[in-house]
Amino acid sequence: MRSHVVLFGDSITEQSFKPNGWGSALANTYTRKVDVVVRGYGGYNSRWALFLLQTLLVGYTNPPVAVTIFFGANDAALLGRTSERQHVPVEEYKENLRKIVCHFKELSPAMLVVIITPPPINEEGRNEYARSLYGDKARELSERTNEVTGVYAKQCIELAKELGVYSINLWSKMQETEGWQKKFLSDGLHLTAEGNAIVHEEVVRVFSEGGLDATQLASDYPHHSEIDPKNLEKSFQERSCKADL
Amino acid sequence: MRSHVVLFGDSITEQSFKPNGWGSALANTYTRKVDVVVRGYGGYNSRWALFLLQTLLVGYTNPPVAVTIFFGANDAALLGRTSERQHVPVEEYKENLRKIVCHFKELSPAMLVVIITPPPINEEGRNEYARSLYGDKARELSERTNEVTGVYAKQCIELAKELGVYSINLWSKMQETEGWQKKFLSDGLHLTAEGNAIVHEEVVRVFSEGGLDATQLASDYPHHSEIDPKNLEKSFQERSCKADL
Repeated sequence: MRSHVVLFGDSITEQSFKPNGWGSALANTYTRKVDVVVRGYGGYNSRWALFLLQTLLVGYTNPPVAVTIFFGANDAALLGRTSERQHVPVEEYKENLRKIVCHFKELSPAMLVVIITPPPINEEGRNEYARSLYGDKARELSERTNEVTGVYAKQCIELAKELGVYSINLWSKMQETEGWQKKFLSDGLHLTAEGNAIVHEEVVRVFSEGGLDATQLASDYPHHSEIDPKNLEKSFQERSCKADL
Repeated sequence: MRSHVVLFGDSITEQSFKPNGWGSALANTYTRKVDVVVRGYGGYNSRWALFLLQTLLVGYTNPPVAVTIFFGANDAALLGRTSERQHVPVEEYKENLRKIVCHFKELSPAMLVVIITPPPINEEGRNEYARSLYGDKARELSERTNEVTGVYAKQCIELAKELGVYSINLWSKMQETEGWQKKFLSDGLHLTAEGNAIVHEEVVRVFSEGGLDATQLASDYPHHSEIDPKNLEKSFQERSCKADL
């Protein structure tokens, strides 16, 4: 039976199958080994995400072998600014993440759970984006700041430590590179091709650490060069046993 | 419950989640509506594909709502040339396709079945590719010709008519465009970004004709702008009913 991984998150997950997206790249990395199921919900915060858990994976007989949980960019929207309806206080954000992690761990204690922090924010990029949409009518102050998003990222990493699950500190990781503001972020928040590449690379690294190394997993059926055209039954039978991990 | 579509085929399907791939593009088109499950097997012909049918979708409780069946590029490899082990006579190719279609229709008579012909072959592109790999030691004659692949494409379309299922004549479609040889094919057989775009466009068109129009399908959960932060239970409850198609 083919196992699957789930990508659960906000727009950065929903958009991960756009050209050069990290979701597509992951599906390509795990081709013929693990299915990648995307459950990304643009604009959602961790509070709203809780309402999806019970019905998120109806139709799959088995729980996923791994999940990425990637919320926080909307929770960290500031009160009193244009996206305040998405704001969730940081203490609640942490507790919501805890509930999400526990939900998946209850489905399967062996599941590889990876929490990803929101990416950093380039406030000037957000402002440019707002001006490109609304011109002179654009709001003056960015609806998110890098500093506040960093507070959310920190709690996200804290929670992963408390619960003993994997995490990716995207907020810190991206800021290690000079010019991260434009290199990794297209509008100060969403990812460029290079930003997507970082997420893909980090998820592959953490999945591998957690025992889901694509290079070590058997493909679902024999490579075409291994098929003996004169003995097809045997070619396919042998492999079925080998792939029985 | 989220429905899913399956992409079943050879390397052109297996590679469809590479950057700019038609599989990723399809997953993006149907985001939050239909899952895209890739079952692509590089080098496989229709004869070998038959061995996969019984175990292809173990783990999914429901049959897919649609499937693309995309074989023939390897069946059409010529006898007496370097890829002859993949060759399948055209009469058998047609019968194998018939078995594959019937297998899916037996899973669910309502399933939208789309057979895709192999793309055209640019023989000079195949030769250039062989020389890039083997230099002077490359074989003289292309292992596939456009003419022979066209015979397979014709039988593929014939079969779709006989069975009353949808088809995409990629072999003809691509050749309508001036310069198709380099524009759509990277090595005389596999697809460039523009070649992938054609497949994506055609699959979306045929899926829409068959009742699976992404613009008409409900998203799985409310758009974030429709969520009433003061009445979350109601926001999610109402939508569950609405999405109950």
